[in-house]
Amino acid sequence: MISQAVIGRLPRYYRYLGDLKDDGVERISSQELSELMHVTASQIRQDFNNFGGFGQQGYGYNVEYLYGEIGKLLGLDKKHNFVIVGAGNLGRALGNYLNFERRGFIFKGIFDKDPAIIGREVRGIKVRDISELDEFLAENDVDIAVITLPKTNAVDIADRLVKGGIRAIWNFAHVDLPVPSDVLVENVHLSDSLMKLSYNLSQIQKEEK
Amino acid sequence: MISQAVIGRLPRYYRYLGDLKDDGVERISSQELSELMHVTASQIRQDFNNFGGFGQQGYGYNVEYLYGEIGKLLGLDKKHNFVIVGAGNLGRALGNYLNFERRGFIFKGIFDKDPAIIGREVRGIKVRDISELDEFLAENDVDIAVITLPKTNAVDIADRLVKGGIRAIWNFAHVDLPVPSDVLVENVHLSDSLMKLSYNLSQIQKEEK
Repeated sequence: MISQAVIGRLPRYYRYLGDLKDDGVERISSQELSELMHVTASQIRQDFNNFGGFGQQGYGYNVEYLYGEIGKLLGLDKKHNFVIVGAGNLGRALGNYLNFERRGFIFKGIFDKDPAIIGREVRGIKVRDISELDEFLAENDVDIAVITLPKTNAVDIADRLVKGGIRAIWNFAHVDLPVPSDVLVENVHLSDSLMKLSYNLSQIQKEEK
Repeated sequence: MISQAVIGRLPRYYRYLGDLKDDGVERISSQELSELMHVTASQIRQDFNNFGGFGQQGYGYNVEYLYGEIGKLLGLDKKHNFVIVGAGNLGRALGNYLNFERRGFIFKGIFDKDPAIIGREVRGIKVRDISELDEFLAENDVDIAVITLPKTNAVDIADRLVKGGIRAIWNFAHVDLPVPSDVLVENVHLSDSLMKLSYNLSQIQKEEK
């Protein structure tokens, strides 16, 4: 069982290795990677040991191989269809984000209840009426739903998504979703993140007085 | 010195207490709060003890008082002006998000280099040419900058922001920013978060085979 802390670090390794690969770097030692990422070399070796290593003593890591292996670990070699519920600014921003597609996340549908938004297009996909959600999920093979709704509606929608077979929710609503334990939820509480910044800023400004 | 882990939990307490306050709840025990938030009561008591408690034995916590105190701790009783660099979908979404204003974050300006976007309005504020950034920072009292740019431009812009007196960066670019140690950076790497979801989903789907 790999800890969520290690898993949480994998995407960052993946990002750095992708940049190195794009820059034509073929191999890298844990020491060099450590300096680049500001993480200790021993942390890197420990993290990679969770997955059987990837490295060779004295040679370092093969960048392309390591990038591919971490990508597979992250499930990025598979396709996942996703829908977005909530076609406001944030929902549209996420729908337009092409990088997701490159990593195997396929944008299949987007829903809203606002008649002024329904029918508009986001990257070639028409915004559907939220009343069509259940039918759409029944007819399409969708794994992941993104919720970008006010918190008052998010809990009801999460319930419908789970009934429709959604296995994973990427939740941007400012509420913790009560879903069955076999449904994954990854929260992005933007306000929480901004408040953390605000706290640390206040502390610095207090020290300066 | 309060740990970043505790600080990271404060916004969530703040969110729950705000909801309780809105629902007219006047007081709550750590046990009740524990059940609501799915955190142990002992964790709650420990967290609050970092700030001198807030509670009374046998009475529980006064919701409004606690909400106000945590808000002050988070620096939400102060105003912070912020600018957004990058007026794409995500930048506009964040500019339009009224909730930030309620928490003391005042939207002052938004910048882009794309002539097709410059001059458009986001919540009554015109998108300015990025070439005006340095002058704007010199003339306005801005604490926080939000970066919603492709990673290739983000590092240069961060440098300009720091020279312009920015103390805290809320970074949505997929790159770690090399800034002086007295500048705060709070990263929101959306791709990383989605990859974490993808990893956990792959694990579940493997187990089912």
